[in-house]
This record gives sequence, C-alpha cells and structure tokens, in this order.
Amino acid sequence: MNILVTNDDGIDSPGIYALVHALREIATVYVVAPDRQQSAVGHALTVSTPLRATPFKRDNEFFGTAVDGTPADCVKLAFSSLLQDVKIDLVVSGINHGYNTAINVLYSGTVSAATEGMLLGVPSMAVSLGTFSWDADMKVAAKTAQYVASRYFELEIPKDTILNVNVPHLPEEQIKGIKITQQGHGEWIDKYEQRFDPQGKPYYWIRGVYNNLDGISYSDDVAVEQGYIAVTPITFKLTDVETMNKLKNLF
Amino acid sequence: MNILVTNDDGIDSPGIYALVHALREIATVYVVAPDRQQSAVGHALTVSTPLRATPFKRDNEFFGTAVDGTPADCVKLAFSSLLQDVKIDLVVSGINHGYNTAINVLYSGTVSAATEGMLLGVPSMAVSLGTFSWDADMKVAAKTAQYVASRYFELEIPKDTILNVNVPHLPEEQIKGIKITQQGHGEWIDKYEQRFDPQGKPYYWIRGVYNNLDGISYSDDVAVEQGYIAVTPITFKLTDVETMNKLKNLF
Repeated sequence: MNILVTNDDGIDSPGIYALVHALREIATVYVVAPDRQQSAVGHALTVSTPLRATPFKRDNEFFGTAVDGTPADCVKLAFSSLLQDVKIDLVVSGINHGYNTAINVLYSGTVSAATEGMLLGVPSMAVSLGTFSWDADMKVAAKTAQYVASRYFELEIPKDTILNVNVPHLPEEQIKGIKITQQGHGEWIDKYEQRFDPQGKPYYWIRGVYNNLDGISYSDDVAVEQGYIAVTPITFKLTDVETMNKLKNLF
Repeated sequence: MNILVTNDDGIDSPGIYALVHALREIATVYVVAPDRQQSAVGHALTVSTPLRATPFKRDNEFFGTAVDGTPADCVKLAFSSLLQDVKIDLVVSGINHGYNTAINVLYSGTVSAATEGMLLGVPSMAVSLGTFSWDADMKVAAKTAQYVASRYFELEIPKDTILNVNVPHLPEEQIKGIKITQQGHGEWIDKYEQRFDPQGKPYYWIRGVYNNLDGISYSDDVAVEQGYIAVTPITFKLTDVETMNKLKNLF
C-alpha cells in the first residue's frame, strides 16, 4: 500500500511526524506537506502565484517535500506532478493539533486535504487530536490512524466520502473506544477583541466560543468530549434536494 | 431591509460595485469586503494575525469597510464588531468574476462568505457571473441578484441553506430564464506547468481543465452552459448517513 501523508500544521510539526512513523509499519509513505502552519485555510487553493516544492529532511529518516501552499495545493501538486508515477492508494491528512469536528470541518485545512484526495478519486481520511499543545502525546492518535488506515478498504467507503477521525487527548486507558458519529451541529459565538497599535489605529483579534447545539451522543463533538474516538463519514454533496424541489414550483 | 454585501474579488472590483447599486433600490446596503483579490480562498479564516478594517470610498457615493482578510473574516467581523448595532436581514456575496458551480463551490470565497452568514443565522446568497473579464457587463447579474434578494423571504429558504446563483455572461435577450438546479458533479483535471526561474529552480503554475461528469440538464454547471441562470439551494450537512449506519456494525 502507498500512502500520501499531508497536513495543515506544516511538514515540521509533531503530528505529521508521529503519523508517518505509525503508517510506515503498514505502508510505503510519501510526504508532501505545507512548509509552514496553514490552520483554518479551509479548502483554499493557490491560483495567483506559483508554487515551490522543496525537499525536506528530518533526523536523516523522515523525508518529504515541503510546498509553499495550502493543504489542498499539496495534494493536487503531489498527484499531478511530484508523485505522478506512484499509484497512491490512500491519502491521510494529519495529525492535526486541535479537533476538526462539527462546523470546524468547513474551516479545516486538514479535512480539506482529505477532501481534495477524494475529489481526485483516491480514498482519503483526516485525523485530528484534541489539543493545541505542541508537545502533546501523539501515541493514541497515531495508533488510531494506523488502525483505521489498515481497515479502510475492508470498510467499503463510497468514493464520494472521506473518514474524519477525531481523537481525544487522553491516556489510552481512559479512551472509551471508537464511536461512529455524525457531524455535530454547533455554532461559534464570535468576539473580536479590538486593540490599538502604537499609532492609535485599531486592529481586531478573533476569539470565539464554541457552542454545541444538538447534544446528541453520536455527534462528533459530543462523542470526543465523552472520551470516544469519533469517526465520521463525510461527503460533499451540497444540494438541499428538498428545497430544490420546492423552489421548482416557485420560479 | 438591511443587506450586508461582501465578495472575494475585493472591495474595488466591478462586481461588488454593480451589486451594491442594484440592491440599493430595494434595501439599505452595508459593504464590508476584502481589501484585495481573495479568489479560491475557500472558507479560510484569519486566526494567526489580527485584522485591520479601513473605511473605503469610491466616487463619493460608494462607501464601505475594507478588511485585510478573507470573505469569511469580513462576515464574522461585520456581525460581531463593525455592524453589531445593525440588524442585517440578508447577506449577498458577489458578483463574482467566474462561475461558482459544481465542485468549485468548495474552493469559492464568494460562496464561503454566504455560508458564513448562514452559520451566523442570517439568510444568505452568493452571485457569480460566467466571465473573468474585468470590464464585463454586470447588468443581467445585478438585476438577477436584485430579483432573487427581493423574493428571498417569500421563498422560505431553510436556515441551514443558502442560495447559490450563477449567471451566464450573455446579453439579456439570450438568457433562457431561471432554472432551479442541483450542484453539478464534475472534476478538475489538474496540470501544473513546471517552469524554471533565472536561478534554474523549478516552480509550478496551476492549470486545470474542468470536466462535467453527469450531463444532467438541471445541474448548475450544465444549466449555465445552456444559457440559464442557475439557482442552487446548498447546505452543509456533511454526514454521509448511509455510510455512518453501515459502519456502526463494523466497529
């Protein structure tokens, strides 16, 4: 099995390092990832400037290609140019620092990389860990990624769907197990904090509080809070079919 | 009616200018838009740097606020800070230069601004015109935006859904009418063009060819090619429920 690994925290982050080592035990791993932090870039693409691709090496045993673009750029460039002669069987994006549950899926560069793999016809998954700490213990998340990747093909995931995996940041013995979940329903209550620069001009820092709105135990955001690893199959068929049918009578 | 207008081509683009003038005939219009081109940014948010908001004026009759961020940033900052004392009834994003149909919806900053409005609980729509020409005739698109906005509340669009409007770049008499559509199914066949800089180092320009895969006449990408204005209700409930139910037996 050939796996393409990417992420949105950058090729030098602890999450991708742990992921690659775990996946190497079951596959040949190729790494094409952003050369720097790309959090919250969503499904952004670089179209107005060209991309650079630079060989990356760490500890003489972690090799990859660093791209000065977004996670979606990395996947597109990997498939169409950098790895065009390799048959990639699976795209795994992560391990992200911070959950990508509920509406955060829409803002997530980690998930968008998996989405891009799916759009290019390759089975794909995203893995995120519930902490922003840079020295977090990645063991449980890495082991989970390896487990789900090793079972991916047996699960017969439809080609329009990806798996979005979220892992609580807990010691292994406190994890309650894997739960198959739906995307939770919640909202960000935004507060921008206004500050003033030394010239007296204002600027705004985003600060938000997340508010779950459904409280359903098999929603991804609720499940991780309860200590479960959440695995959500997500797809991007966006048409609201019911409304479409209703509107047809109104125009 | 109070309308917030934003876009992804920048506050000084012809599309937003035409849109604002058309919507002023039916509403009080507020403009908060990116200070520069933000195409293909998807649903990106600015989280690692603060935002600046600067008053913008054009021809002494077009007023707004320019933000050095993405379309989604503009909507969030408008609601939580810049326009917190105004009750906005509708968010209209556009008029984009270039269609946002089929999978392009995922990459679109224009659509993401409308999505962000919806996530914040406000009825929202996106409008795009099928040309990249900066001096395109915006009349039909502006008139369409005005027409759909004026009927928006009568249509009883669910609160999780936005309207995605795509207008062919044709003289009005050649437009065949409005068609209610679904999101088309297609793919980008990517080709990155490799070039070499004066130092001999490679860089890559994205170039893609879009390929429709369904050929269904009520798909948005097909309808616009046939000369119809496409109105697609889209929603972001991403769970693949069928696969979720199947996987529950496998874990």
